[in-house]
Amino acid sequence: MCNFETKIRILDLKPVTITSDFGTRDFYAAVVTGRLLSLQPALNIVTVTHQIRQYDVFQASVVVRNTFGSFPEGSVHLVLVNGSSAIQNRQLALRYKNHYFVGPDNGLYGLVFDENPDEIIELNSVEIEHDTFPELDICTHAAVHLAEGKNISELGDKTTELVSSMPFKPTSDNNTIKGMVIYIDNYHNAITNITRRMFDKLNKSGKFTIRFGKYFTQKISPTYNYAPEAELVAVFGSTGLLEIALYQASARELLGIRVSDVVRIDFE
Amino acid sequence: MCNFETKIRILDLKPVTITSDFGTRDFYAAVVTGRLLSLQPALNIVTVTHQIRQYDVFQASVVVRNTFGSFPEGSVHLVLVNGSSAIQNRQLALRYKNHYFVGPDNGLYGLVFDENPDEIIELNSVEIEHDTFPELDICTHAAVHLAEGKNISELGDKTTELVSSMPFKPTSDNNTIKGMVIYIDNYHNAITNITRRMFDKLNKSGKFTIRFGKYFTQKISPTYNYAPEAELVAVFGSTGLLEIALYQASARELLGIRVSDVVRIDFE
Amino acid sequence: MCNFETKIRILDLKPVTITSDFGTRDFYAAVVTGRLLSLQPALNIVTVTHQIRQYDVFQASVVVRNTFGSFPEGSVHLVLVNGSSAIQNRQLALRYKNHYFVGPDNGLYGLVFDENPDEIIELNSVEIEHDTFPELDICTHAAVHLAEGKNISELGDKTTELVSSMPFKPTSDNNTIKGMVIYIDNYHNAITNITRRMFDKLNKSGKFTIRFGKYFTQKISPTYNYAPEAELVAVFGSTGLLEIALYQASARELLGIRVSDVVRIDFE
Repeated sequence: MCNFETKIRILDLKPVTITSDFGTRDFYAAVVTGRLLSLQPALNIVTVTHQIRQYDVFQASVVVRNTFGSFPEGSVHLVLVNGSSAIQNRQLALRYKNHYFVGPDNGLYGLVFDENPDEIIELNSVEIEHDTFPELDICTHAAVHLAEGKNISELGDKTTELVSSMPFKPTSDNNTIKGMVIYIDNYHNAITNITRRMFDKLNKSGKFTIRFGKYFTQKISPTYNYAPEAELVAVFGSTGLLEIALYQASARELLGIRVSDVVRIDFE
Repeated sequence: MCNFETKIRILDLKPVTITSDFGTRDFYAAVVTGRLLSLQPALNIVTVTHQIRQYDVFQASVVVRNTFGSFPEGSVHLVLVNGSSAIQNRQLALRYKNHYFVGPDNGLYGLVFDENPDEIIELNSVEIEHDTFPELDICTHAAVHLAEGKNISELGDKTTELVSSMPFKPTSDNNTIKGMVIYIDNYHNAITNITRRMFDKLNKSGKFTIRFGKYFTQKISPTYNYAPEAELVAVFGSTGLLEIALYQASARELLGIRVSDVVRIDFE
Repeated sequence: MCNFETKIRILDLKPVTITSDFGTRDFYAAVVTGRLLSLQPALNIVTVTHQIRQYDVFQASVVVRNTFGSFPEGSVHLVLVNGSSAIQNRQLALRYKNHYFVGPDNGLYGLVFDENPDEIIELNSVEIEHDTFPELDICTHAAVHLAEGKNISELGDKTTELVSSMPFKPTSDNNTIKGMVIYIDNYHNAITNITRRMFDKLNKSGKFTIRFGKYFTQKISPTYNYAPEAELVAVFGSTGLLEIALYQASARELLGIRVSDVVRIDFE
């Protein structure tokens, strides 16, 4: 019976997600996966994406921010993207809203979290075997530890230090919001950093103009397909953020949209 | 003991496959995966591909048609590709040959099924939280319901309506078949819509000429490698469909092959 | 109770990894996955990559060589890449360092293994249904057999024949090593075929010059980030191989690095 209990207990493992800039052609993603399975053969590993642009912590933050909450509470999110300035290679485990995050201290977390994390641990319980790839030894161990439901505080020393990042927040006064495009998705939708809450706060009259380059619209559509004749469609998407789509625009115009392009809303 | 039984029962879950046009860089695929695991942590989720061209229901149909039968009976196939005209966003669950299909009513199923499905249910048992992404709420719930072996009829109302699609079927008379390329694979093999059955029916003399652009051949090869000197190789592939490969052709010629290019067979 | 034991035993299945040149848009990878799950629904299937260049056995060998050891002992590695000359389509299962390898006899294994494998079996226990895709029938069956812990010798006849490949080994004399770039990763790091052991053997004085094109360095850095001002950084990476990175180089120069470019080390 005892043997049965042991084996059945592993069904309670939490999933481990991986977000990285490893790409999908190389062997790094598989090496990390293999190491995780060597530590815990029953682990459920979910690839979020390995196609973050190299060293692009900002892009990673948009992906992680919009992903983690859909996973079960207690899930572990490995985020293995090195900022180009992450010289000291400090590796962290963090707890935030009943999710765990493991990876280098690369400035990501200031962009992902709206509030301070509940706990930050600087990982130091494992020897590094590979100086060039410390995440392989340290972060896989921490991820399995947390997925098994063990205590985060056993992984190292508590800290409050975190490489800070300034999230690009929209600026606003009484009747204007100026935000920007933070992500362009596979369908050429431009996701901005303007939240529904910011918008609702200033939208007292129900009259407003959203401007993006030479385009504008005066309404929020319920879905992307709502106004196929219009050129600019503004939607609050599943991310809770204002998204901009250009219908009937030429491919050249669509491809001309860039992260950091300005979106402006004037309320009457 | 009762507790044991509960946990062991989940090993009987059927796999859920996902075919989508989400791409592999964004967070949509991971959000769907996370939602599925939140509903059923032990679910086995298999990515078929997230790289269907945006809104390309036809390409999705070729992939799904040639994939689903290799999975165990009872598997659930989430196909999350919106046709550009799918304005009304009707979400369906279908049963066909002991497999389940879940996704928007986008015209896919007329291209995937040779016969009418055994059951069509219009999904209405779940509230939509995200107007811009109704599949996230509705289809994940239905997929988990079916993977758990629960009854499809509990998911909504029976219907017989289905957005119709005309599968591009070859035309033939007594001694000619005119078909077309429906898919070009990673190896530059051109898969046509000509089935082995159509071919066998007209191939009484064993003498025929297969023409593709300026190329032709007068035999079917058993494998791609059989006739490396010939320029045009014709094979009945693992799909059961006539496939055309050009050996020794220049890259320019290979890349010039397009979906909808005509393939013609004249029998003597 | 007996029923319990049966179900619990499948938790002891070993993982099956897949490395292929199927690409990620087509249905071949999913068809193989579906077939594996049809044979063994509880199988844990890990995608290493499906993005090996078509027929590129050499690239596959670099990926497999650097991946397999990170997985648990007993893992099964399906390597489904056909060399363009693999006309006879001989399918093998091999045992090497307590790992199993299954796939066509395409010259890969001479590049992956440093010593002779412990066992080579020519697979012949399954009927081929698809002449154009024999791996689908034969290799999936063998992979599941091995993942279930069954004996490799039941899969066919022992053999010692193996398509031979000359691994490109560095040449060296008393004070020079001439190696070459064998892989360029997602970060533009150039991985060479020079091992740390070769290097240590000749590095008696601690004085050496590593040359790569017009660049050179006279030290080995502990990590990629160690010497950000230098143009050429030389590192022994997690692969155990000498890796070359160019910092501050233009994109044009980075993109000019090619597999088979020469790296030379002169010791004093």
